[in-house]
Amino acid sequence: MPTRGAYASGRARREAILRAASEAFAAHGYRGTSLAMIADRVGMSAPGLLHHFPTKEHLLIDLLALRQQRDAARVEALASEGGGRILDALLVLAAGNADSPGLVRLFTILAAESVDDDHPGHDWFVERYRRSRHFVAERLIEEQRVGMIRDDVDPQMIAAQVLAMFDGLQLQWLLEPGEVDMVAGLDDYLGGLRSQLAPPELPAGPEDE
Amino acid sequence: MPTRGAYASGRARREAILRAASEAFAAHGYRGTSLAMIADRVGMSAPGLLHHFPTKEHLLIDLLALRQQRDAARVEALASEGGGRILDALLVLAAGNADSPGLVRLFTILAAESVDDDHPGHDWFVERYRRSRHFVAERLIEEQRVGMIRDDVDPQMIAAQVLAMFDGLQLQWLLEPGEVDMVAGLDDYLGGLRSQLAPPELPAGPEDE
Repeated sequence: MPTRGAYASGRARREAILRAASEAFAAHGYRGTSLAMIADRVGMSAPGLLHHFPTKEHLLIDLLALRQQRDAARVEALASEGGGRILDALLVLAAGNADSPGLVRLFTILAAESVDDDHPGHDWFVERYRRSRHFVAERLIEEQRVGMIRDDVDPQMIAAQVLAMFDGLQLQWLLEPGEVDMVAGLDDYLGGLRSQLAPPELPAGPEDE
Repeated sequence: MPTRGAYASGRARREAILRAASEAFAAHGYRGTSLAMIADRVGMSAPGLLHHFPTKEHLLIDLLALRQQRDAARVEALASEGGGRILDALLVLAAGNADSPGLVRLFTILAAESVDDDHPGHDWFVERYRRSRHFVAERLIEEQRVGMIRDDVDPQMIAAQVLAMFDGLQLQWLLEPGEVDMVAGLDDYLGGLRSQLAPPELPAGPEDE
């Protein structure tokens, strides 16, 4: 049975490997990265790395799950704050992403690579988007229920659109950060969307922001 | 000097290679594809393929340029038709993309991979998005000039947003085509955007579509 010290050092080692894998995937894509490259970055032998993660796929899934848990917890907390709206929470998430381009780059490349059915991240990303759309749509349905937004809009479609704008602006920002301000772009889009979603009783329209 | 027949057969061979490369990149990503894999698909030896395309990068740039030329010509023609609006033209382009998921998959993966500065497609994609934003913005400025859309909106920002929505919906559609209808999603988004852009003189708002 490993001692407590051995456990802690194993955990630190796993975290160092995940960090190195994240950097390597961000620089070379998932498919362009070998386990040997990751082992090299973290100063281990390839068999030593295999002891912690038997395949590159294990590394990928762990990384994605970590990122998703962090983001989901953050959006959930933001959306639950008094009077919090889901669209505001997503804007805060985007502002946070603007400070970690490496992670956003990794996620953007992996999500795109995974559209191929054979990619080991495919099922994970299908499920991730399904869950994210569902999460946003459920919040919008709740906002409809309490009269914060109008009834005659399709929460599922809006959820897909909001996530799409998020991803698409991130891509342009990653390509040319000095040219495209993804947070300002998303903020402006969400402002227009909020006007469209405002219930008919309230004043609504582009002038009323 | 090659005969006319030799020229024609060389051209046919180049086209066959480009087609095979397009399929291989769509299936394995740019980085996951080797020249040997492409040569194999097209039934050539690797040295035979190198005669036509000295590096994988040459293939990539040719493929991207072909795609871009086709799309730009199409959007230009649509936007120039009597009273045509740029947003309508983009919707027609999206409807066309829905019929060629292989090409869209290729483009989506390559665009995301190219956010890495070292990717051979990086400069091409930076320039491609810059040019696309400029093209859409110029059309919107023209529509502002003739009073079709309101003056107090930022054409550059709207251009970035429209392209972002386009890309983001394509990604979700590629992951789960049965679940996300990218054309309906884009159509709905553009409908809302048109209402927001309508000049104040004209009736505007979600009910007036």
